[in-house]
Amino acid sequence: MSIKKILFINAFQKHYPMFWNEMGMAKAEKYGFQIDFPAKDGDVENIDWSKLLPEYDALITTWRSPVCSAEFLKNAPKIKVIGHCAGSVVAVVNESTFTTGVKVTGANSVMAEAVAEWSLLATLLAQRNLTCYAKLNRAGRMNWAEAYNMQDIKKMTIALWGMGDTTRHLLKFLAPLKPGRILIVSNHASEAELSAYGAEKATLDEALQNADVFHCLVGVTAENFERIGAKEFAMMKDGATFVNGGRARLTRENDLVAELQTGRINAILDVFSKEPFAEDHPFNDLDNVILTPHNAGFTGRDRFLPYILDEFDRFFRGEAMLSEVSSKRFATMTNEKMR
Amino acid sequence: MSIKKILFINAFQKHYPMFWNEMGMAKAEKYGFQIDFPAKDGDVENIDWSKLLPEYDALITTWRSPVCSAEFLKNAPKIKVIGHCAGSVVAVVNESTFTTGVKVTGANSVMAEAVAEWSLLATLLAQRNLTCYAKLNRAGRMNWAEAYNMQDIKKMTIALWGMGDTTRHLLKFLAPLKPGRILIVSNHASEAELSAYGAEKATLDEALQNADVFHCLVGVTAENFERIGAKEFAMMKDGATFVNGGRARLTRENDLVAELQTGRINAILDVFSKEPFAEDHPFNDLDNVILTPHNAGFTGRDRFLPYILDEFDRFFRGEAMLSEVSSKRFATMTNEKMR
Repeated sequence: MSIKKILFINAFQKHYPMFWNEMGMAKAEKYGFQIDFPAKDGDVENIDWSKLLPEYDALITTWRSPVCSAEFLKNAPKIKVIGHCAGSVVAVVNESTFTTGVKVTGANSVMAEAVAEWSLLATLLAQRNLTCYAKLNRAGRMNWAEAYNMQDIKKMTIALWGMGDTTRHLLKFLAPLKPGRILIVSNHASEAELSAYGAEKATLDEALQNADVFHCLVGVTAENFERIGAKEFAMMKDGATFVNGGRARLTRENDLVAELQTGRINAILDVFSKEPFAEDHPFNDLDNVILTPHNAGFTGRDRFLPYILDEFDRFFRGEAMLSEVSSKRFATMTNEKMR
Repeated sequence: MSIKKILFINAFQKHYPMFWNEMGMAKAEKYGFQIDFPAKDGDVENIDWSKLLPEYDALITTWRSPVCSAEFLKNAPKIKVIGHCAGSVVAVVNESTFTTGVKVTGANSVMAEAVAEWSLLATLLAQRNLTCYAKLNRAGRMNWAEAYNMQDIKKMTIALWGMGDTTRHLLKFLAPLKPGRILIVSNHASEAELSAYGAEKATLDEALQNADVFHCLVGVTAENFERIGAKEFAMMKDGATFVNGGRARLTRENDLVAELQTGRINAILDVFSKEPFAEDHPFNDLDNVILTPHNAGFTGRDRFLPYILDEFDRFFRGEAMLSEVSSKRFATMTNEKMR
């Protein structure tokens, strides 16, 4: 077995120790991969990727990697596959990439399962209304008088916007809790799949109007960029919870803040239009929000690189990759300009 | 169909509107039950239950109801069944009750499912370490630097002490999340049942030593009263989370406080030796605890009385009740003196 040389195009050096852990090292050795991390010391500006590319068989990308266009790859005849060690591949490939014959895969399914875990937690936090009565930090106190201020999940309507990997994992997690209703907003979800999960199709308006908890789990496209604004937030029921563990740009954030400031609805958010946002951001003055620092997809972070190495091993042995992104699938995904 | 007369022996009048809701009223009408609530206005001291009992066919009990001993029931020839609208029946019946031929049931399984939901939430809170980096109230701020301070559930060991209704529900809820290991501490759990859930048997010491999250889900008996003390807390791993949504008297609370004050372990607690505890209780000075006001079992509270009415309907039609407590089962349950 010849050694395969893999270049990690990582312009974000603080992630290096996260990616390059014992599990990844063990897989690299097992599969016969040599992985180079020229950006690991942070000297990104002085790296000429085009000079490095010719000697490698595969590329790994991550956040802030350059876009691997046909132009970028023109002097890299040996590169046959690109693996994206993060969520959606739209940030690191474009349509031209697919014209080169290079195959594309990514660790999105690992992140999607983690985002689904976060979404399950958000659902239970909304159901149980923990911030209303629990002691959650040193200064906090239990509010015994509000102990019954919570909902029965068997009477709740949970709406999921989008039908991708995250939604499918979340549906598995929710099933044993037997929520009252699960509404799915999706153009492509099949009735057969939905009924297997005990879920129903709904329009976006129906989902917003009926949800006790509304989850944004769809990629950003030209069609849904800032799709949820003042009119849509106003459709939500009093006391309902708007959850966004997906993409900030699905909403008009100023409209969300304005609706939250009325106290009429609640929000649980992991994504923001600017990260980190300023200390004087109005989010910091709200009681009816729970905010997490864009880490929903990170509980399985140790498995991102090992997952890509498994994919590369399948590819080099001539097997199908589990998460290959075809040019056709790419066309339906999150629009790069809209991130 | 003759009307069955049911007496609700409720000495805790604030719960009356919770119990007697539309769902219960509809079932009472459907089944031909007349339910009287003489204590609903709180004038409990002036009620002579022994005078009322002779005319009733069934009793419903709840928190702070008198113990329905053989002596208590001696002038109640028509009473054939007692339904406990709360958790364990040990507070409202004793061994003599079973000598009268009266059958006993309860809504414990409804509460158990709710406690399992709470336990799932506690597991995810422990996994994700939310209090470390999330904004959870107005004064709180996100701590972006701590965003990676969380665990991979697929590498975590979750220990469950006890194998009753709550544990069984929790095992169903945890299954799709695929935790690394699930350890069960139980004398009576069968290997076949455990392996169906992907769980393993462990001794209490093994569970404490290996758990990332340790859940108390067992009834209090003479054998396990204050079973978890300083020695047991010291067995737990650094950073592990001790969860008690069951019974406060399983632990020596002072020992728990002392271990928590070192900051070595965390706790998520719903039950306390005194409720509510005093404002100057050391729990109120701790950062490494999440506390809820003994409401873990209450998300399905609207279904407690309807569940008992379903049980009574089964009983009066000659069917087996789903949650009948036999005298044999009673003998193995939470010891009344130990609550």
